[in-house]
Amino acid sequence: MKVVITGGAGFLGQRLARKILDKGRLVDSDGRASEVTSLTLVDVVAANDFGDPRVKSVVGDIADAALVREVIDAGVDSVFHLAAIVSGQAEADFDLGMRINLDATRLLLEACRAHGRRPKFIFTSSVAVFGGQLPDVVQDTTALNPRSSYGMQKAVGELLVNEYSRRGFIDGRVLRLPTISVRPGKPNKAASSFASGIIREPLNGEDAICPVPPETRLWLLSPRAAIAALLKGHELAAEGLQDSRTINLPGLSVSVAEMIEALERVAGEGVLKHLRRERDATVERIVGGWPAAWDTSRARALGLAGDADFDSIIRAYIEDDLERGPA
Amino acid sequence: MKVVITGGAGFLGQRLARKILDKGRLVDSDGRASEVTSLTLVDVVAANDFGDPRVKSVVGDIADAALVREVIDAGVDSVFHLAAIVSGQAEADFDLGMRINLDATRLLLEACRAHGRRPKFIFTSSVAVFGGQLPDVVQDTTALNPRSSYGMQKAVGELLVNEYSRRGFIDGRVLRLPTISVRPGKPNKAASSFASGIIREPLNGEDAICPVPPETRLWLLSPRAAIAALLKGHELAAEGLQDSRTINLPGLSVSVAEMIEALERVAGEGVLKHLRRERDATVERIVGGWPAAWDTSRARALGLAGDADFDSIIRAYIEDDLERGPA
Repeated sequence: MKVVITGGAGFLGQRLARKILDKGRLVDSDGRASEVTSLTLVDVVAANDFGDPRVKSVVGDIADAALVREVIDAGVDSVFHLAAIVSGQAEADFDLGMRINLDATRLLLEACRAHGRRPKFIFTSSVAVFGGQLPDVVQDTTALNPRSSYGMQKAVGELLVNEYSRRGFIDGRVLRLPTISVRPGKPNKAASSFASGIIREPLNGEDAICPVPPETRLWLLSPRAAIAALLKGHELAAEGLQDSRTINLPGLSVSVAEMIEALERVAGEGVLKHLRRERDATVERIVGGWPAAWDTSRARALGLAGDADFDSIIRAYIEDDLERGPA
Repeated sequence: MKVVITGGAGFLGQRLARKILDKGRLVDSDGRASEVTSLTLVDVVAANDFGDPRVKSVVGDIADAALVREVIDAGVDSVFHLAAIVSGQAEADFDLGMRINLDATRLLLEACRAHGRRPKFIFTSSVAVFGGQLPDVVQDTTALNPRSSYGMQKAVGELLVNEYSRRGFIDGRVLRLPTISVRPGKPNKAASSFASGIIREPLNGEDAICPVPPETRLWLLSPRAAIAALLKGHELAAEGLQDSRTINLPGLSVSVAEMIEALERVAGEGVLKHLRRERDATVERIVGGWPAAWDTSRARALGLAGDADFDSIIRAYIEDDLERGPA
């Protein structure tokens, strides 16, 4: 079985790769557990290949048609399409966002279609597809109404993956990821970057800025649970997805104030000295437009789970990242 | 004021052009009634120029970037983007539908953006953006859930027009047209073509096939009311559209049985001998997935109106087309 991960050098891509290599097998389109013989990691920078002969790292531009044709060859069984320009950057550079979040997605879908083998295609989408006047609890049937370029691009990707699946070109699965927290490493240009920073930086003895009011509610998922959901989303039988390929993953609805209380419980009062409030109108506007509560009954019925509470999300970060170090 | 109509040789494009020429003025982006000095009609075939010096007919491929740049020059104030591959054809030829319904829309939007003048951009969308499990009455907040390639392409167009408007690249308006009936001329490849054919053909003494059961409900708008809505949609102040650029136009919810009863009332029992039932599973599947009842309170609040009843739709066809002849 031949698997491709775009954004394969990113932190989710790297963790997903390691997990797939550890498992050794994935369920193929015929529903059989098959040995993973090849795992291609595509990204703009070289991915860690874990010294594993199954891994091939390809460095290049995912919006380059020639590169996409090279990577998605006739043998590909599964594509995890994680590569994206994050929300803040897609807002700052409209053309770059269109190129990577929309054009590259379409190129990948076309390459999958070209071979006529209907590969599995796992596309990560986002809470940013919603906005405007929202119901208290977002349902599966709530209208796409993005209020950012990133959200629009992800919404278009969702429509494409659903349609390419309906036509039988791919076997697609759209997983709407909650905001990932605690993300390891450095702050990025996502509007939601602070949702990791306000926990990660204090735990590392560094200062962090909280740009939104404490009552702001977020919809969160730990990296551990995200990787489990990506794999589970891949393994699901296509028959369960006939009505829609798009699944709202179960997150945890937590306010910023509750996150900080959890941080204090897990790491002690002392860490709070690293936190400073400084409101940022742009971040507040983008994040404030995202819904904070969801009906995830369909995801749960399909066997997709989230995290128990935010304390355990912090503890998972400490175990997986702070104590173990970089992947 | 310089106006462009894509699909300008089509029947809606031609009627819209004649109406704009008759009016002589349209409301520009600054809210002022301005003289229309130039009206470009773009289509794959030559448009009727009505012998009017303001009209320029451009024949070409709307998905050709060079043609789009030529047509959308720095002076353009308003674009009515009506050109499309209809539902049945977009289902039969996926690539053609993607090219015209999606790529051409994006080229036009990019050309509008390039000049930095924020032109008005009127995009016609369709009931086909909906499907799957629908509420009894479709609301403004009902989720996009297309079940056809055409519907997906229109849904993507809606998202693009909304986002390009939010970013200030255009002043967009998406008008979701009900099925147009009675459309003059010949049957086309739209799955809904019969919604005109079962009225038009009998009135012209020709035979027509009804491919769906009599209880099938349609959501209809006459050509007269459609042209009025396109113009009204253009004239609306942008301030009323901040929450969403997309408007469900008020249609008439009518069953096929009620349409045939109206035909008999208006034209006499004799015409019914031209009607034959022959079910078509593809048409039934596509049309059966469209919603038949809508909440159009927002459109009505904005001053957009539909037709009074189906009898008057038939009488309008007789006056505008049967008696007057081709445009």
